[in-house]
Amino acid sequence: MHDCDAIVIGAGLSGLAAARALEAGGADVRVLEARDRVGGRTLNESVGERPEDVVEVGGQWVGPTQHQVMGLIGELGIETYATHSEGQSLFEGPNGKLTRYSGTIPRMNPLVLADYGRADAKFKRMAKSLDPAAPWEHPDADRLDGQTVADWIRRTAKTRTGRETLALTIRVVLSVEPAEMSMLHWLFYAAAGGWDDLLDTEGGAQQDRIVGGSQLISLKMAEQLGDRVTLSSPVSSVRVEDDGVVAGGQRARRVIVALPPALAGTIDYEPALPSARAQLTQRVPMGSVIKCMALYDEPFWRQDGLSGIATSLPGPAQVVFDNTPPNGTPGVLMAFLEGRDARILGSAPEAERRAAVIGTFARLFGERAASPSGYIEKDWSAEPYSRGCYAGVPTPGTWTAYGRALREPVGPVHWAGTETATRWMGYFDGAIQAGRRAAGEVLAAEGAASTDAAPAATA
Amino acid sequence: MHDCDAIVIGAGLSGLAAARALEAGGADVRVLEARDRVGGRTLNESVGERPEDVVEVGGQWVGPTQHQVMGLIGELGIETYATHSEGQSLFEGPNGKLTRYSGTIPRMNPLVLADYGRADAKFKRMAKSLDPAAPWEHPDADRLDGQTVADWIRRTAKTRTGRETLALTIRVVLSVEPAEMSMLHWLFYAAAGGWDDLLDTEGGAQQDRIVGGSQLISLKMAEQLGDRVTLSSPVSSVRVEDDGVVAGGQRARRVIVALPPALAGTIDYEPALPSARAQLTQRVPMGSVIKCMALYDEPFWRQDGLSGIATSLPGPAQVVFDNTPPNGTPGVLMAFLEGRDARILGSAPEAERRAAVIGTFARLFGERAASPSGYIEKDWSAEPYSRGCYAGVPTPGTWTAYGRALREPVGPVHWAGTETATRWMGYFDGAIQAGRRAAGEVLAAEGAASTDAAPAATA
Repeated sequence: MHDCDAIVIGAGLSGLAAARALEAGGADVRVLEARDRVGGRTLNESVGERPEDVVEVGGQWVGPTQHQVMGLIGELGIETYATHSEGQSLFEGPNGKLTRYSGTIPRMNPLVLADYGRADAKFKRMAKSLDPAAPWEHPDADRLDGQTVADWIRRTAKTRTGRETLALTIRVVLSVEPAEMSMLHWLFYAAAGGWDDLLDTEGGAQQDRIVGGSQLISLKMAEQLGDRVTLSSPVSSVRVEDDGVVAGGQRARRVIVALPPALAGTIDYEPALPSARAQLTQRVPMGSVIKCMALYDEPFWRQDGLSGIATSLPGPAQVVFDNTPPNGTPGVLMAFLEGRDARILGSAPEAERRAAVIGTFARLFGERAASPSGYIEKDWSAEPYSRGCYAGVPTPGTWTAYGRALREPVGPVHWAGTETATRWMGYFDGAIQAGRRAAGEVLAAEGAASTDAAPAATA
Repeated sequence: MHDCDAIVIGAGLSGLAAARALEAGGADVRVLEARDRVGGRTLNESVGERPEDVVEVGGQWVGPTQHQVMGLIGELGIETYATHSEGQSLFEGPNGKLTRYSGTIPRMNPLVLADYGRADAKFKRMAKSLDPAAPWEHPDADRLDGQTVADWIRRTAKTRTGRETLALTIRVVLSVEPAEMSMLHWLFYAAAGGWDDLLDTEGGAQQDRIVGGSQLISLKMAEQLGDRVTLSSPVSSVRVEDDGVVAGGQRARRVIVALPPALAGTIDYEPALPSARAQLTQRVPMGSVIKCMALYDEPFWRQDGLSGIATSLPGPAQVVFDNTPPNGTPGVLMAFLEGRDARILGSAPEAERRAAVIGTFARLFGERAASPSGYIEKDWSAEPYSRGCYAGVPTPGTWTAYGRALREPVGPVHWAGTETATRWMGYFDGAIQAGRRAAGEVLAAEGAASTDAAPAATA
């Protein structure tokens, strides 16, 4: 009658974690993946001959307090190494002035630093009172969800550079412009991850990298799941019937949709989804980011006492990291084009975009940076099975109007994906938490169903 | 080689107007419609035996300066009649106090009226300077697109009732909450339609109704197009090839996607859409509205000197109209549940929603309103091929970041639908303008292609 107990749509971290948890709970599972690979928004690219000579064109970092992903990594026998941060970092000010600094705080004009610091401290006080499992229950939720971060920054920071630095922070952490996001979502994001940590390498969300590349987590999970994972199988419809669901030609008792809401919304559901769910999926667009890397024979900036970490207000590459693989070659400088910059340069020819990124590297790290031996880039908005990165960002007014529909199952249809996480939303850790939570819902419901069915069967 | 010159996806007003314009230009066209009917967001429902005994559960009104739709109606031999507005209208204040008024301005506390008037006048001054064909070029576009209407109302209106009335205005005209929309979009919407007119019956956007119901416009166009329109044919992919496009099993030179952006985004495009277009479709969610009507033997409120028009701050039916068909029976009271009210009551059982609506009618029009002979409702958010009404509403930050991608063709793929109109966006008139504009693009491109090809053919 059923081909399996549960279908999981999407073989990213969340879907694979869900499938593993279902298997561990004794359920027979099938994972259907649209792409010809697993890993979703993680993707390795080889830059050398050794297995660890890889860079990631998608998500890459892990950090402290991310217990779900750190535990999983350990279980799968994967190793991590510290993100390179030795040496001095660079800050390029609004007028192109370049300064070196140590630690996490750039050497800025003291007035600007004080201005930024006041706004940041005010924001952190506000974030403390928010429950990331139910942002809509915050006593001031309506007002906060009706104010954009752009508006708040404009009214809170007094200096132009302070405002620009706050906007840069939003852009690099959330890959949208401050105008697109409500204060409530920013507070949620900070409360779910711990805002202090989000910006840092050592001790923060960018602390560690994965030997062999972050896609390895998904590759290893898929290996364990074996032929339960089917690639190149986009699911265009989910049909709910009396005794279960049909999706991608498979029949099962339940289905977990492990996709971001924007992609979950492209599936045809039968019967139609309840209004609240149908509207929610139209209101969590993906962020805009192009990840760019330049390759060099060696990480030459390290010899100049530089960490490779840089922040540039003029941009367009506003944040830069040393992304050299663990063996030390090739040297890799990596930059994100985010929000506004991803949009403007995403429409430009590849050569122009490359010139803009390499140009920023040369301003920051000198002439040697102007002649890389290779260049790699990935525009996630142009990927039909992602439509953007890092994550979906609820638009203003969405948390308060539709937040309750984010995780609420619709009959036998359950929702995973990092966007449904209550801890580290938007990160690997949140993806895994969400997958496991959805698997738990399925196991509990089917357990209850078996128990309910038992007396009838023996009657 | 091609089955036709152009495929039109969607047989709403915009798609059918496009198809008609293409045919008039000498192109061979096919219209593919997902539903088993034409008309999109217009839909008639019979309430009697005569052909004109219909009410509309979707869009219904036309008004002055809507030249595209008025011209088309005349061409198709369709008649209009005035929306019933004789008699006094009702205003239910925040504490449930009911007052009668004549004309368009409710009898409110003078302080509140002055407060509302000041905000409204300020808004209208701002709207004058905006070009609806390019809102992103407004000198203050970034700031206005980064401020929600909720925030503006909170800072502009001084009285609570003034603020609530402004919020009601947004809700009833745009079917979203003020928190979901930027000031730039509100200014655009007003500039595209003429804000004064939007709120009125006589002389405004609700002035006239259509004998036989508004769906008749689409039904008549489809009748003329004959077997060029195919129903029950949802299009799940559009493939662009060297010499044209393939969609819904048809090959053509060009395709017009006559769907709101949110639905256009559910189609798989091959090759993938450019980033800007892919991101735009995630950022124009549909509004939330449930249209509700109660039927009575006769329009008894007219005998009490009432027009049937009412505005209620307590709601949940915040605006009410007399929606009696032209012959005068049955009497019909119609209310919209919009934004917040559509969401809350959209999740409630039908009986509870009905009781809330009929309860408002009884408070406004007396006990006779409490016992209707029939009740009709339609929740457009639960319609998979609409996903909401009245129209798509760009989220804050979207106009400035992605506005240019709204009408920009992607190779042989053109975009119609009322959301792409520059005049009367969200109305029938805008749908027709958009369809004709897209048809013009196709005809111009194919004309240019034939001219280009001519010398080669004769060489």
